[in-house]
Amino acid sequence: MEFGFLGLGIMGKAMAINLLRHGFKVTIWNRTLSKCDELVQHGASVGETPATVVKKCKYTIAMLSDPSAALSVVFDKDGVLEHINGKCYIDMSTVDADTSSKISETIKAKGGYFLEAPVSGSKKPAEDGQLIILAAGDKALYDEVLPAFDVLGKKSFFLGEVGNGAKMKLVVNMIMGSMMNAFSEGLTLAERSGLNPGTLLDVLDLGAISNGMFKLKGPTMLQNSYSPAFPLKHQQKDMRLALALGDENAVSMPVAAAANEAFKKARSMGLGDLDFSAVHETLKAPDHSS
Amino acid sequence: MEFGFLGLGIMGKAMAINLLRHGFKVTIWNRTLSKCDELVQHGASVGETPATVVKKCKYTIAMLSDPSAALSVVFDKDGVLEHINGKCYIDMSTVDADTSSKISETIKAKGGYFLEAPVSGSKKPAEDGQLIILAAGDKALYDEVLPAFDVLGKKSFFLGEVGNGAKMKLVVNMIMGSMMNAFSEGLTLAERSGLNPGTLLDVLDLGAISNGMFKLKGPTMLQNSYSPAFPLKHQQKDMRLALALGDENAVSMPVAAAANEAFKKARSMGLGDLDFSAVHETLKAPDHSS
Amino acid sequence: MEFGFLGLGIMGKAMAINLLRHGFKVTIWNRTLSKCDELVQHGASVGETPATVVKKCKYTIAMLSDPSAALSVVFDKDGVLEHINGKCYIDMSTVDADTSSKISETIKAKGGYFLEAPVSGSKKPAEDGQLIILAAGDKALYDEVLPAFDVLGKKSFFLGEVGNGAKMKLVVNMIMGSMMNAFSEGLTLAERSGLNPGTLLDVLDLGAISNGMFKLKGPTMLQNSYSPAFPLKHQQKDMRLALALGDENAVSMPVAAAANEAFKKARSMGLGDLDFSAVHETLKAPDHSS
Amino acid sequence: MEFGFLGLGIMGKAMAINLLRHGFKVTIWNRTLSKCDELVQHGASVGETPATVVKKCKYTIAMLSDPSAALSVVFDKDGVLEHINGKCYIDMSTVDADTSSKISETIKAKGGYFLEAPVSGSKKPAEDGQLIILAAGDKALYDEVLPAFDVLGKKSFFLGEVGNGAKMKLVVNMIMGSMMNAFSEGLTLAERSGLNPGTLLDVLDLGAISNGMFKLKGPTMLQNSYSPAFPLKHQQKDMRLALALGDENAVSMPVAAAANEAFKKARSMGLGDLDFSAVHETLKAPDHSS
Repeated sequence: MEFGFLGLGIMGKAMAINLLRHGFKVTIWNRTLSKCDELVQHGASVGETPATVVKKCKYTIAMLSDPSAALSVVFDKDGVLEHINGKCYIDMSTVDADTSSKISETIKAKGGYFLEAPVSGSKKPAEDGQLIILAAGDKALYDEVLPAFDVLGKKSFFLGEVGNGAKMKLVVNMIMGSMMNAFSEGLTLAERSGLNPGTLLDVLDLGAISNGMFKLKGPTMLQNSYSPAFPLKHQQKDMRLALALGDENAVSMPVAAAANEAFKKARSMGLGDLDFSAVHETLKAPDHSS
Repeated sequence: MEFGFLGLGIMGKAMAINLLRHGFKVTIWNRTLSKCDELVQHGASVGETPATVVKKCKYTIAMLSDPSAALSVVFDKDGVLEHINGKCYIDMSTVDADTSSKISETIKAKGGYFLEAPVSGSKKPAEDGQLIILAAGDKALYDEVLPAFDVLGKKSFFLGEVGNGAKMKLVVNMIMGSMMNAFSEGLTLAERSGLNPGTLLDVLDLGAISNGMFKLKGPTMLQNSYSPAFPLKHQQKDMRLALALGDENAVSMPVAAAANEAFKKARSMGLGDLDFSAVHETLKAPDHSS
Repeated sequence: MEFGFLGLGIMGKAMAINLLRHGFKVTIWNRTLSKCDELVQHGASVGETPATVVKKCKYTIAMLSDPSAALSVVFDKDGVLEHINGKCYIDMSTVDADTSSKISETIKAKGGYFLEAPVSGSKKPAEDGQLIILAAGDKALYDEVLPAFDVLGKKSFFLGEVGNGAKMKLVVNMIMGSMMNAFSEGLTLAERSGLNPGTLLDVLDLGAISNGMFKLKGPTMLQNSYSPAFPLKHQQKDMRLALALGDENAVSMPVAAAANEAFKKARSMGLGDLDFSAVHETLKAPDHSS
Repeated sequence: MEFGFLGLGIMGKAMAINLLRHGFKVTIWNRTLSKCDELVQHGASVGETPATVVKKCKYTIAMLSDPSAALSVVFDKDGVLEHINGKCYIDMSTVDADTSSKISETIKAKGGYFLEAPVSGSKKPAEDGQLIILAAGDKALYDEVLPAFDVLGKKSFFLGEVGNGAKMKLVVNMIMGSMMNAFSEGLTLAERSGLNPGTLLDVLDLGAISNGMFKLKGPTMLQNSYSPAFPLKHQQKDMRLALALGDENAVSMPVAAAANEAFKKARSMGLGDLDFSAVHETLKAPDHSS
């Protein structure tokens, strides 16, 4: 089975290598050509433009950095649209529902087939083929490319119409953002009440609400260390978008709204580029920290 | 090693049996005497009053239903105080910090030794010896009774001064209550946005915030089934007490406060005796349910 | 001094009549021509199109129902733009900052002068010349038309660059929306605590926080009567936009966020078309009202 | 008509003088005797103890600083209780419902008559006889002392059973506290959005939500001046007690809860002794203020 693959950033590179290792033929393209070299050593072919990749391959996967890159690869000169008639395009970039819908509609109007398939998971799961794939759009296409999804992810979901992949990510990230605030409030309450917050981490880890995020972030939060795995400003943006989705559907979400204001407070303190766990800093008493 | 054991409710009975099975000698007392029979078959002796148990045993554990029972066993006629001089008392009941301090101070004034040791976990962990024990008070006593704690729990913590056990439980339950609201908002948002909330459960279960509570409660919440494992009114009480603890220590906790108001809303809807996951009902649109 | 006047809805008609009464010459235009008759009896001339009105008058005021009407009158065929070179356009419609900016930039590019001037106040203040005028844009133009503003309003403000009028309205409405929630919570707390909420109204009216909104809305809220003076869905939209403005500027506003979720709750209950005071209904206990 | 009067602090002194000026006979007592001198010049008699005052006068008013002073004057040696049989006691101090109930029950058990009558208003209204009187308890006694209330206040209310006076004050102060937060958020949003917050004050002052608190506090808040008229820690205490009253009655109050957390945040910043308008400081961006 042969795939085109557009975009060789941290995620895309790891995913393309996984496909090659599992015996797929892969034709790659990247805006910066030099990034293709390592993949060529793994057996990849190189296409000169997105258009030539799509022309050559029945299936083309894209993994681009943001909505504007995702749009550019499709709509620009020598872009995906030029040879999309009869071909299949799977966009695994994280984009908003509107961007995804725009790409979907145009490709379908030109006679192509479209699947959105954003992923949950970052560098390590991408390398290990342990991503969670949130696909939506063309169900027949989803079924056809399942062999590739099985290589890239530990699990894939088909979620119905285009836009549902983006929405599912927002819901998950909203829950995560509220949980981070709950956790942060608990750590702060423990500390100010004379309890050892490190012991709180141990107690939490043994109980029913034990989870990977608490285990990973707890120790660094207690050291006031917020090296950005997921930047706070992006988490806050996802809270905002999830609340907007709730607004559209008349869903009142008071806990998410309170969490969102805490993330905004953190942004006002200049913490937007740190890890989203830096929301912890909003709860500290200024006169204690001096 | 010999232990007195006061209180043979669901929890106490399971714990006393565990001690007997692991070779400890146990002298039991229960307000309703008939509950002692099964334990006697397992090899327990019976004491006529709390006072006689304490007189006979160097160490006496109590596992009583609430603060008033905990106080009564100590302070009433034929109570623990009568022979406490030189003896050790370990109260594993869930009581507030004030009750615990009152018992502690009186026992110490009478020449006894005191440890509070509330547990996290319910019937099943009690039977399996998998409780989490949150001990505080007399450290030397804690060290002496560790062999018993090793039988009763999978892990015990020594948390310092009396009251810290109760506080630690509040912090954990506060985080849990906010998480339940975050979860409930996410399920509702998914449903109203046209996503399958069952799929959301699957996606959550594969990611970094996967945890036992979501796994256990998610499926029943989607069925609007709220059989009370932990009654909502008790969860709300713990939120209130945790917020009060924050008030004492000038800790602002906006997410916990929003979650608390949601639990209060649920109480106003008459859901206080259902499981705390029934807070899910506060988010539903009335006109959709009719 | 001569004015063009576009738009004779409830507000526009009252304003144009005021101008005529105070001796201004006024040339009117309205999409539905028959609405012009009454004004002609007051001495107005009629223009056939927005373009002819602007051609004839140095100053043209617009008072249109919504952003799309405001855009249409300017950009459509026979619209304001056709003869705007050297002329002055004062848009008093309530539109968002983006719409206002788009109109402003195009008019200035075509050699015209622009002032946005949304008003606070509804039918009665419009008739009585008691509006509050929130102007922004061309300061020289503002100074020139002050004689007209003095007739239309009890007070006008010049707020700087285009968009500031719209923003000021949002800030005021956000405060109003949070206050309505605070008021509603107080009324509900009084009632459920066994106090007479009518007496609460009397007590409030005598103190430092007495205000016109409490006086006007309190009695009807106690009768569960929510005839729409300002529809709840519009109030909630303004809360959302004010929170978005805060998001842009990293301002955390936890009370407004909580109030917004209450308005959303009210929308989910089907109350969006009632008066914004219907948020009161979100606090009622369902089992008490049945 | 003759009155005993216990307590000559700022409030009590002004009130007693008012009574004297309007022709009432007044017998005073104060813990610090020297404070009686000025009143004697106005024609007051002096009693040696609360007991002797009560013995002499059919009606005795108390205006004491806090619950402990209110209890002490009644229950201590030479206190009110000694001669209360057949006499009438009107406690106008601000105390909690529990304190008031305890005093009420004891006095009634001893054959006396009781009215609680906390006031709304501070020094200036006390001097001007413009207090708002929130009376509860013995209705017949209320009717008898109306001539005095007419002198002391601009309006008095009879609210039913003892405790209702205290509750009514809490509800009013809760609304006030949420409003202060709404106001503060609006001022901050205006400032950060490039609007002149001074102009916002002018605009607010002309509209339906114009009120004395905004007029009084707005200008000083813009100068970051928070001279304590009503200390923030007392406002936060009242928010807490109002939320507790809501908890008892299962009233969910999300806006008051969010406001309470903001006041707690202010306390954590060391602002508890400043005016409650200092909650404004919680919204400032730390990096902007340096």
